[in-house]
Amino acid sequence: MIVTNMDRTQCMALLRASRLARLACVKDGRPYLVPVTYAPDGDNLYGFSLLGQKVEWMRGNPQVCVQVDSFEGEREWRSVVAHGRYEELPDLVGWKVERERAWSLLSKEAHWWEPGAFKPVPEPPTHRIFYRIVVEEVSGRHAFPEGTAGGGVPR
Amino acid sequence: MIVTNMDRTQCMALLRASRLARLACVKDGRPYLVPVTYAPDGDNLYGFSLLGQKVEWMRGNPQVCVQVDSFEGEREWRSVVAHGRYEELPDLVGWKVERERAWSLLSKEAHWWEPGAFKPVPEPPTHRIFYRIVVEEVSGRHAFPEGTAGGGVPR
Repeated sequence: MIVTNMDRTQCMALLRASRLARLACVKDGRPYLVPVTYAPDGDNLYGFSLLGQKVEWMRGNPQVCVQVDSFEGEREWRSVVAHGRYEELPDLVGWKVERERAWSLLSKEAHWWEPGAFKPVPEPPTHRIFYRIVVEEVSGRHAFPEGTAGGGVPR
Repeated sequence: MIVTNMDRTQCMALLRASRLARLACVKDGRPYLVPVTYAPDGDNLYGFSLLGQKVEWMRGNPQVCVQVDSFEGEREWRSVVAHGRYEELPDLVGWKVERERAWSLLSKEAHWWEPGAFKPVPEPPTHRIFYRIVVEEVSGRHAFPEGTAGGGVPR
């Protein structure tokens, strides 16, 4: 088994190719960790949520960590860890363009709204939390068996 | 899409059936999140690690969060979030039984030592970190399409 570090370009490529991540946030020194779906755009990951523990904690402390992985067969995997900042896109004057951007990106994904509680409509729904994670630091590892090329990724 | 809460028994069943989790820890209000493999035993999740950021952070703050999920088809999933406490099993007199317990559980899993840097041997290797996460609180959600029985899990 060989484990190599992924560079920023490789890390961002995996973040941009994925739609499912795990997201960790913190309150009073205690972590909370949930799966989230997202839509990538540049260095931003756009997401949607109902109001709940995750959003409340991220409002209190916007420092988050996002992890994405891919498994290619039993013995080859990639994992990217991104540190970033939570930014809410409130339903207020001045945020309309950003909210519509998030909606536009997210609504392209089949089932992206699940387990949300509404049907897809042309306009962004109100009373839902739209947010983005601004990725600040990334690191990643790529593991593959000795003697293979590791899926063609440069070593 | 129907989303139901899982009770403690259902949550522990998923934790005990899984071998791959995501684990979040905290330092200075900042989360860190990585995938880990583990071996379950009662309310404990046994793991192994080389010394690194994860272990250093958990030594400083043993409060951790572990998340496990399973996807049964495109539209049915379960996710369990467990809050727990990191306990290291040091290579010291007085910890031999616990370390050998961890080793015994972990060595049953094919490839469990990957991406470790050693081959399986009959005795626990030294200079490796064995630990357990003591699960204290669990919660879980089970999502499935309307009109299905949700994989036979009681609703």
